[in-house]
Amino acid sequence: MCPTADTSQDLIGQITLLLCDYLRSQGDQSQPVSRVLGPEQLQQVFAAAGIPLSLEDSHEGTAPKELLAAVRLALQYSVRTGSPKFLNQLYARADPISLAADWLVSALNCNVHTYEAAPVLTAVEVEVLDKLAACIGEPYTSTHDGLFVPGGSLSNYYGIHLARNRADPQYKQRGSYGGPCMVAFTSEHAHYSYLKAAFVTGLGTDNLISIPCDAAGGILPDKLEQAINSAKAVGKVPFFVGATAGTTVLGGFDPFQDLAAICTRHNLWLHIDGAWGAACLLSPRHRHLMEGCEQADSLAWNPHKLMGLPLQCAAFLTRHPGMLKASCGANASYLFGEDRLHADYDLGDKTMLCGRRGDAFKLWLEWKAYGTAGFARKVEHSFRLAEHFEKAVRASGGKFALVQARSYVNVCFWWVPPPMRPFTADSAPSEALDTLAKVTPAIKSKMQHAGDALINFQPLGSLPNFFRIVFSSALSIREEDLDGLLNRMDQYGQGVWQAARQPDLQPML
Amino acid sequence: MCPTADTSQDLIGQITLLLCDYLRSQGDQSQPVSRVLGPEQLQQVFAAAGIPLSLEDSHEGTAPKELLAAVRLALQYSVRTGSPKFLNQLYARADPISLAADWLVSALNCNVHTYEAAPVLTAVEVEVLDKLAACIGEPYTSTHDGLFVPGGSLSNYYGIHLARNRADPQYKQRGSYGGPCMVAFTSEHAHYSYLKAAFVTGLGTDNLISIPCDAAGGILPDKLEQAINSAKAVGKVPFFVGATAGTTVLGGFDPFQDLAAICTRHNLWLHIDGAWGAACLLSPRHRHLMEGCEQADSLAWNPHKLMGLPLQCAAFLTRHPGMLKASCGANASYLFGEDRLHADYDLGDKTMLCGRRGDAFKLWLEWKAYGTAGFARKVEHSFRLAEHFEKAVRASGGKFALVQARSYVNVCFWWVPPPMRPFTADSAPSEALDTLAKVTPAIKSKMQHAGDALINFQPLGSLPNFFRIVFSSALSIREEDLDGLLNRMDQYGQGVWQAARQPDLQPML
Repeated sequence: MCPTADTSQDLIGQITLLLCDYLRSQGDQSQPVSRVLGPEQLQQVFAAAGIPLSLEDSHEGTAPKELLAAVRLALQYSVRTGSPKFLNQLYARADPISLAADWLVSALNCNVHTYEAAPVLTAVEVEVLDKLAACIGEPYTSTHDGLFVPGGSLSNYYGIHLARNRADPQYKQRGSYGGPCMVAFTSEHAHYSYLKAAFVTGLGTDNLISIPCDAAGGILPDKLEQAINSAKAVGKVPFFVGATAGTTVLGGFDPFQDLAAICTRHNLWLHIDGAWGAACLLSPRHRHLMEGCEQADSLAWNPHKLMGLPLQCAAFLTRHPGMLKASCGANASYLFGEDRLHADYDLGDKTMLCGRRGDAFKLWLEWKAYGTAGFARKVEHSFRLAEHFEKAVRASGGKFALVQARSYVNVCFWWVPPPMRPFTADSAPSEALDTLAKVTPAIKSKMQHAGDALINFQPLGSLPNFFRIVFSSALSIREEDLDGLLNRMDQYGQGVWQAARQPDLQPML
Repeated sequence: MCPTADTSQDLIGQITLLLCDYLRSQGDQSQPVSRVLGPEQLQQVFAAAGIPLSLEDSHEGTAPKELLAAVRLALQYSVRTGSPKFLNQLYARADPISLAADWLVSALNCNVHTYEAAPVLTAVEVEVLDKLAACIGEPYTSTHDGLFVPGGSLSNYYGIHLARNRADPQYKQRGSYGGPCMVAFTSEHAHYSYLKAAFVTGLGTDNLISIPCDAAGGILPDKLEQAINSAKAVGKVPFFVGATAGTTVLGGFDPFQDLAAICTRHNLWLHIDGAWGAACLLSPRHRHLMEGCEQADSLAWNPHKLMGLPLQCAAFLTRHPGMLKASCGANASYLFGEDRLHADYDLGDKTMLCGRRGDAFKLWLEWKAYGTAGFARKVEHSFRLAEHFEKAVRASGGKFALVQARSYVNVCFWWVPPPMRPFTADSAPSEALDTLAKVTPAIKSKMQHAGDALINFQPLGSLPNFFRIVFSSALSIREEDLDGLLNRMDQYGQGVWQAARQPDLQPML
């Protein structure tokens, strides 16, 4: 029953045809972005197709027909991130060329730890890091080191780890115990991976100081310097500032010039989490948002976000060559012995991990295909959409209210129930805030069930749940699509509001 | 010139055809496993095809013809891990069905952090973890938690991190500073990721105690208990034992029953790095090697190794539900708010990272295709090849010498120059050891340049460079292939030896 060498080769061909069909239709706006099924319903759908999700009874293999049915269901019930209506996350549609490159990387199945095992993928990774460094500018253009890593969180860990090793050269051997009490600083709007880094690296959240931001989400430099001085005054040792280019919710940028000056004054490592925002460097019109970033000691940049590469494609860069090897190298003789051919080109010993997928190749092929100019067009189109959307919110006659003026391609807004218009958060009674906290998820749920646009929401500090729309890798979205979207959201909002006013439907809010 | 929406869709089709051709021919023994080109030669080859590796001049895009040329070159000059002659690493040929599933995961481009964004991939991940847990047996079958992670090193980090949080509940908040001096234990043959974990988690290598092994690579339990008592005697706090199922070089298994008894006595967390060896659990004939593993607190298992899945596919499992969330959870409201549909099914807050590729899906489809029985056949075939190879080394009349009797599917051996036969390392003069240290890399280099089988080598303790052949996901290899391989290796050896005896060629050793 189960596949043989021949039929498995046939199967990959058949599955590939299904995938190519899927990709051709991914821009189709008439398809629901997601079909909401709970876990039990999903179980039923797969079981009905003769291929239950459970592997409990999978002692023997399954016939190709059922395997193909499973592939069809996986395509049908997964969220269509390639749809122009997928506006939920900082990643979205993967471009077909980088996707083909991703498939090639998997087909090769080479581990990019040694040049011996992956010569092409190693050489390509070095070239792509050179190019990203050149986009940052001097001193990176001339002097840098880096790695592709499985995700931006890990890049932030690298930043902290290298900083720690520079500040405390005995750390690798002695560990934290018996050393100084080190402290790191980041903004209140920074990504939670800084917090997780504090868990994992033994820093502890007590020693990760959160600095307040201005309304746009940029860190307040004076507050940072005060906190550094306060920490020093009680005998702690500041070593790291974790800045952000493009905060997750508001899309705020920290003032890098100011931060660099502070870090120089206090001899701290400046790392920029540019997972989301560093793509601005590709656009002559918008790269000013990154001004001063070249002074950072290290930087995270995720091409799988605004640049439209498939997950994962994430780069870590530093302007200190040798620090990766010094902080992470273990010199495992079974892998990195010097008596191997071209061993000095091996990348693997610089990493925290061991096995490495060749993620740089997809960015390389995409760059070759579209050029820097192509990426600039993509970034600038995303900005244009965000500008258009922000204007439309402002012009909505109070139906929608902006949470904050836009810095980047995130637009944060509420749908406002009619009696609460015009709405301003500052002067709103707590009752109104409670209402928005419930109305926003109810609208989202309505949209999900309708298969309409997926848009994320969250609270932030004292601000109740609001929508955050993001325009990532968005060449397939047109401005008029956004006008239609706002109209539909208003209708969903009205529906939710009408229903909530009928006593027997109150529970839905 | 550069691709448009239409041509990029065409291109993915054309690249897919090239990939399918490549996959069909991957078992072709007449193809060289690798074509050795140094970095400069690779540059030349790509430049000559009109698509230089450098991105320096890539302001505008490149025509599809050059992109296809680049794809062809990447296929041609990458190491053919799908060849039956690729015996270099613990991963090898990826099965076409799991590869197709991997392509699907990339095409979907869903991030498996929330159920909302990836319902199918989330549900599948839970099912696959259930199945792996059931393969371990009770108590895992009934009670477990886990994650798919980008690589076994990270699984080992999770083991240490959870152990640390259990032993020192204030760790997440307070960090290491101001806490007790914690110590961990692992064997001298354990994977270097334990060492890297000591760098990264702030434990420090001073506090990672290396315990001696027997000749087969299994940790000596008495030595472990002595070391634990010695650490306690000087006021340190032991918390973690990092065991290994299938060491990287010798393929040794630690005695898990004994380790579990020691860990119970001293209240330590027992983690097993089964990245390479846990696949034994799938074979009724060989699962005895894992005896006692079900007593471990956590376990790493990489299906991208002996099970033949494409990189990355790596699972972390623990029998302590809730510990992942307690040790890693940050409750980011923008992602994991409770007012989302099915938010209690979200997997993302249990991880150290954020973005997650749906790697579990490829294991799910592969399991459906071949069943547990199919994996058992794969594992048992690998064992048969290793047994056959070991016998052939023993029967080689001294041409080859075993480093150590085989425990698993690693066979470690030397080619022995004629005057040194019969060779035993124990009684060999240091001159002979020096000779082997040079002969082994010279043979490897000859084989690489000939495009012949790739087989890893390394020193180990006082043992000079020896070959380690491994049989990973090896259904395409026949026993007679191995006889031919040994004959050819002997010829390469003789060639190296003859050349070294001519004074003007001496430098090659």
